[in-house]
Amino acid sequence: MGLIVQKFGGTSVADADRIKAAASKIIKTHQEGNQVIVIVSARGKTTDELLKMAFEICDAPDTRELDMLVSTGEQISISLMAMAIHSLGYPAISLTGGQVGIRTDNSYTKARIVNIDTTKIDEELKKGNIIIVAGFQGIDIDANITTLGRGGSDTTAVAIAAKMKADLCEIYTDVDGIYTADPRNVPDAKKLEKISYDEILELASLGAKVMHPRSIEFAKKYNVPIFVRSSFNNTPGTLICKEVPEMEDVLVSGATLSKNDAKITIRSIPDKPGQAANLFHEIAKNNINVDMIIQNISAQGHTDVTFTVPKDDLALAIKMSENIAKTINAGEVLSDDKIAKLSIVGIGMRSHTGIAEKMFSSLGEEKVNIQMISTSEIKVSCIIDEENSDNALLAIHKAFELDK
Amino acid sequence: MGLIVQKFGGTSVADADRIKAAASKIIKTHQEGNQVIVIVSARGKTTDELLKMAFEICDAPDTRELDMLVSTGEQISISLMAMAIHSLGYPAISLTGGQVGIRTDNSYTKARIVNIDTTKIDEELKKGNIIIVAGFQGIDIDANITTLGRGGSDTTAVAIAAKMKADLCEIYTDVDGIYTADPRNVPDAKKLEKISYDEILELASLGAKVMHPRSIEFAKKYNVPIFVRSSFNNTPGTLICKEVPEMEDVLVSGATLSKNDAKITIRSIPDKPGQAANLFHEIAKNNINVDMIIQNISAQGHTDVTFTVPKDDLALAIKMSENIAKTINAGEVLSDDKIAKLSIVGIGMRSHTGIAEKMFSSLGEEKVNIQMISTSEIKVSCIIDEENSDNALLAIHKAFELDK
Repeated sequence: MGLIVQKFGGTSVADADRIKAAASKIIKTHQEGNQVIVIVSARGKTTDELLKMAFEICDAPDTRELDMLVSTGEQISISLMAMAIHSLGYPAISLTGGQVGIRTDNSYTKARIVNIDTTKIDEELKKGNIIIVAGFQGIDIDANITTLGRGGSDTTAVAIAAKMKADLCEIYTDVDGIYTADPRNVPDAKKLEKISYDEILELASLGAKVMHPRSIEFAKKYNVPIFVRSSFNNTPGTLICKEVPEMEDVLVSGATLSKNDAKITIRSIPDKPGQAANLFHEIAKNNINVDMIIQNISAQGHTDVTFTVPKDDLALAIKMSENIAKTINAGEVLSDDKIAKLSIVGIGMRSHTGIAEKMFSSLGEEKVNIQMISTSEIKVSCIIDEENSDNALLAIHKAFELDK
Repeated sequence: MGLIVQKFGGTSVADADRIKAAASKIIKTHQEGNQVIVIVSARGKTTDELLKMAFEICDAPDTRELDMLVSTGEQISISLMAMAIHSLGYPAISLTGGQVGIRTDNSYTKARIVNIDTTKIDEELKKGNIIIVAGFQGIDIDANITTLGRGGSDTTAVAIAAKMKADLCEIYTDVDGIYTADPRNVPDAKKLEKISYDEILELASLGAKVMHPRSIEFAKKYNVPIFVRSSFNNTPGTLICKEVPEMEDVLVSGATLSKNDAKITIRSIPDKPGQAANLFHEIAKNNINVDMIIQNISAQGHTDVTFTVPKDDLALAIKMSENIAKTINAGEVLSDDKIAKLSIVGIGMRSHTGIAEKMFSSLGEEKVNIQMISTSEIKVSCIIDEENSDNALLAIHKAFELDK
């Protein structure tokens, strides 16, 4: 007998049949003698429909009112899920974020969980109920409804699992686990049995969309084992857990390709202390997330700086860069949004040499030019031309024998 | 400077343009120096859509979960309304039933308001906010979401107006006031400037659908003046208020026709004490609402009893009647669902004679046969054949000069 937290994403509750299928999975876990807390997201396109309603009213809705609006999506899902469980003859109760005791700060649309008061959860578990919790939402100290931002339901699931010291947190989704690469791009990609928090964090931030980094950080901090599996079949999924020694034996766990970045270069920056700080201070002020930064050694007292930003922020970042270039007497500002970021991740890199070299030579064999390089203890990322990037991913996947 | 409560029904917030139009009306009241509390219903067909989702999951959803589900309809409306007011440059805040302090009992789907804690309302009014409240909902003592049943948003509006001692409660709807008869059936129907609580109560319970009787009872109890008006134009509406002396001068305020009832007759009931009690005890046990009852004097120790029930409950009522007829050795059970109830209402009846007689003779002139009669201090109702009932309504409306 254990305590299991299960989270069902939007596609898993998209229609009545899927809700019933999810209800069966929940009941099976309950029948096996476990206490079950279920986190549910809004149905399929519900959130988009709600946002559309808001933008029909005005262009820049108040964020408090946006949270009031979109939080109804999860509330609809939890009531339907509770009904489905009842109709199969099992006891269940739905609870909104506020009712279940999730207290957040008041940063509407991207609130952070401050505390979880588990009184209600304890009470309902004692009654024998399966608890169905609205993901993605909470209330602040004044009982205003807040939402947790992208990936919020994952965060709700992991936070409740951590607070309740759950034995397992299962994330049911529309993929049946975590793969060595995105199977849509790499047909030979292999499902991983196990992966460490750090690896999945690198993969998530590099563009793999399985779970939101915030929820993984939370899971890592509180050591909550997460099992990612499909809500549409019963194949075993992927366990995300803390590092175990045998993970070091695998050199590379996964490869990922992201096409969401663009590149900006500022030419001929006078080589004086504080110039880079000036530049990136301006960019940060506009909430633009700078990823890689490269500064070459200077020539004739001038240097070039290249950095990447999300494609969506490119126009604004160019404008900022041009302003700052003028102020500091730098040269022209160049940009390129036809780039891709190819990365490999693996705990094994820490104890093995030659991994980066192998990646570079594989890319060379494919005649792929590397524009920028960035590395961490367990990751190597290269910025390459977008055009051949799909083939480059296939080549790297093969070179590291991820298909084996 | 006053405090005004305004309620907008589902058709008044059905799409973005209507929400904006309602927002303009609200702002106008605010600009005139009033504090404004707005009650909003779910948009157009939202509640029906939510119920459809529930019935796709199961046939008899748990009522707590139903309330969790349908209460999202009003929550969507209030957030959109607050956004619309913001976009026009005025301060507003949306509040759910729970947030605004509406405490109810725990009779899900038909909860009654137990108390309204006005702390939050007072606080937000003091800040200068227009308050947008979700109608139809509250929370019970355990913070479970409840709904107030049919006409619930009217009840919310009147209850808040009563508790806040508002100067006026305006009900914005898709008709521009209360008429001497339903204008769809009687083209000559005239809009009433003023009508008493008692008259509107009789009209409402007789089938006029302007406001739910529960909300009027509440308004009467706390003497809240209600102004019914259109959200689509600026024509003056109808004031519902306590009786004033000049109302007595009007013999009949309105006429109404309802086709929602059916008639059951049990023949040859042995004329012994307690038989009627037996019969109606059975019917009541099944939550069937009996309206009129007629028992003729007995002949040869037997009597006939006729009564009306809502058409929807006819099949069940016949079954009950047949069971009880067998038990008490009565004769056959007859039924007729092709009947209509024609009624006139007016405070003037109390102090004037001959009103009923005039109604009967008008019907006689129209060759309309009266099957049953029921009267109160301010009402006369006749059950007639459904076939000619529309013409009968026109005749009565004319006979009492309601078109003048």
